[in-house]
Amino acid sequence: MTLIDGKAIAARINEETRASVAALKARGITPGLAVVIVGDDPASHAYVRSKEKTARDIGMHSVKIELPRETTQEELLAQVRRLNADPLIHGILVQSPPPRHIDERVVIGSLDPRKDVDGFHPVNVAKVALGDPDAFVPCTPLGCQRLLLESGIQIAGADVVVLGRSMIVGKPLALLLMNKGRGGDATVTVAHSRTRDLAEVCRRADILVAAIGQPEFVKADMVREGAVVIDVGINRIADPSSPKGARLVGDVAFAEVAAKCSAITPVPGGVGPMTIAMLMHNTVLAAERIGK
Amino acid sequence: MTLIDGKAIAARINEETRASVAALKARGITPGLAVVIVGDDPASHAYVRSKEKTARDIGMHSVKIELPRETTQEELLAQVRRLNADPLIHGILVQSPPPRHIDERVVIGSLDPRKDVDGFHPVNVAKVALGDPDAFVPCTPLGCQRLLLESGIQIAGADVVVLGRSMIVGKPLALLLMNKGRGGDATVTVAHSRTRDLAEVCRRADILVAAIGQPEFVKADMVREGAVVIDVGINRIADPSSPKGARLVGDVAFAEVAAKCSAITPVPGGVGPMTIAMLMHNTVLAAERIGK
Repeated sequence: MTLIDGKAIAARINEETRASVAALKARGITPGLAVVIVGDDPASHAYVRSKEKTARDIGMHSVKIELPRETTQEELLAQVRRLNADPLIHGILVQSPPPRHIDERVVIGSLDPRKDVDGFHPVNVAKVALGDPDAFVPCTPLGCQRLLLESGIQIAGADVVVLGRSMIVGKPLALLLMNKGRGGDATVTVAHSRTRDLAEVCRRADILVAAIGQPEFVKADMVREGAVVIDVGINRIADPSSPKGARLVGDVAFAEVAAKCSAITPVPGGVGPMTIAMLMHNTVLAAERIGK
Repeated sequence: MTLIDGKAIAARINEETRASVAALKARGITPGLAVVIVGDDPASHAYVRSKEKTARDIGMHSVKIELPRETTQEELLAQVRRLNADPLIHGILVQSPPPRHIDERVVIGSLDPRKDVDGFHPVNVAKVALGDPDAFVPCTPLGCQRLLLESGIQIAGADVVVLGRSMIVGKPLALLLMNKGRGGDATVTVAHSRTRDLAEVCRRADILVAAIGQPEFVKADMVREGAVVIDVGINRIADPSSPKGARLVGDVAFAEVAAKCSAITPVPGGVGPMTIAMLMHNTVLAAERIGK
């Protein structure tokens, strides 16, 4: 059984991205990433810190804009417009979820699609669906695909089951893996809470991707012997034995599934670091495209 | 075995649409559909005639714009801009495919998304992916979904296999049937030319949709006993015994598959008439939305 070391793969990709950043700098362009966060959710702040730190580590211009919880939608949109117009910024990410009084769709729709490094602007959603190579692909599905490619796992012709149909992971990943060409050509099934006999459907998978946000939902009886398992879930569960009283687990019951599959991603240290690496990758792409 | 009579179902839906047209007219709004066709492909002209005739039959304002083969892209775009601005026109369709010197993506991108009754503008592609009820859904996949609904076939929880991953049918239909809510909640697999053991994948289907454009490709051994089969293909094949020397067949070997399945659409008279009925439906939707 192979443990797919997302942390190591992400570190290697970040080194490549660092080289791309240096090459851009030599041409007078410093890729710039702006992360906007509204409110004080601790988990969101932790994610934003990792993104900012990684961007800085690899030599990017990194801006964090922290806005108070009570920021109005109009104020946030004004901020986005400023960043759209800022020539030092090539990628803009508004950390999800914003407070409830803000309509996230409107905010995403206001981004310059050429700076939408998170890949959720309708222009990019459509490009992903069309298999357009100019798309900014959302970072988590892109990270999952890249993990498979970097691990030498055969995607073309494989039976892939994506568990979860969210717009953040499930649906874009399904489209990526079914599109024509490198990293695609898989036979993809999207399974979800309404799927009849979910265990049986999951057992068909050569590659099973769990993205349903339910701690340790995927058990050994849902996995075919020798399958590859990608665990997108990051769930915090109570654990009295831990110093913090809690620990992170994925959507997969790791120990029992690991004993059965041919390769698996751990949580943490699997998909998570790849998501950040793909954000950096997308920001360099944006700088290359805008800078031309 | 039930023959799903697309012609009869489409006629019933067109009667409903006729009533909606009358209701709009009573409010002073006559739904208007403009169909633009460039060049002289006979099949395209036949499609356009059916669309125009149906629109007129149900009381719409119907405009056909025929442009010569040598029309430039800029001329076509100017025509689209005129129609975008025309208050008598609520739906615009540019018949596919245009001549090779015209970039269809650019043309579709120039449509006012509120008049994009064919559902291929990126704004609508993204809305379909997001499951947004404000989307204009492409007419053929919408027609397939409606055929299933009108025939009382259980979609939620069903194993659906969509054979074909085109942006016109396969991918949008897969998204429609997997999205949450009425007409969705199916477990959808998209299979295609690179699928390993295609027959076995197809045999898993409670509902099999064939949309690959290959005459009589789906044989009896690819269909589970009692499955529902929707045939999207329209292929012209040589037939010396026919007065015209050719006849239309679907992507399904009808006779042998019909003997095995619980319900099937014929070609012609299955999905085809539904595509036109959905175009009329979308045009009324557009008039209702714009007219408000």
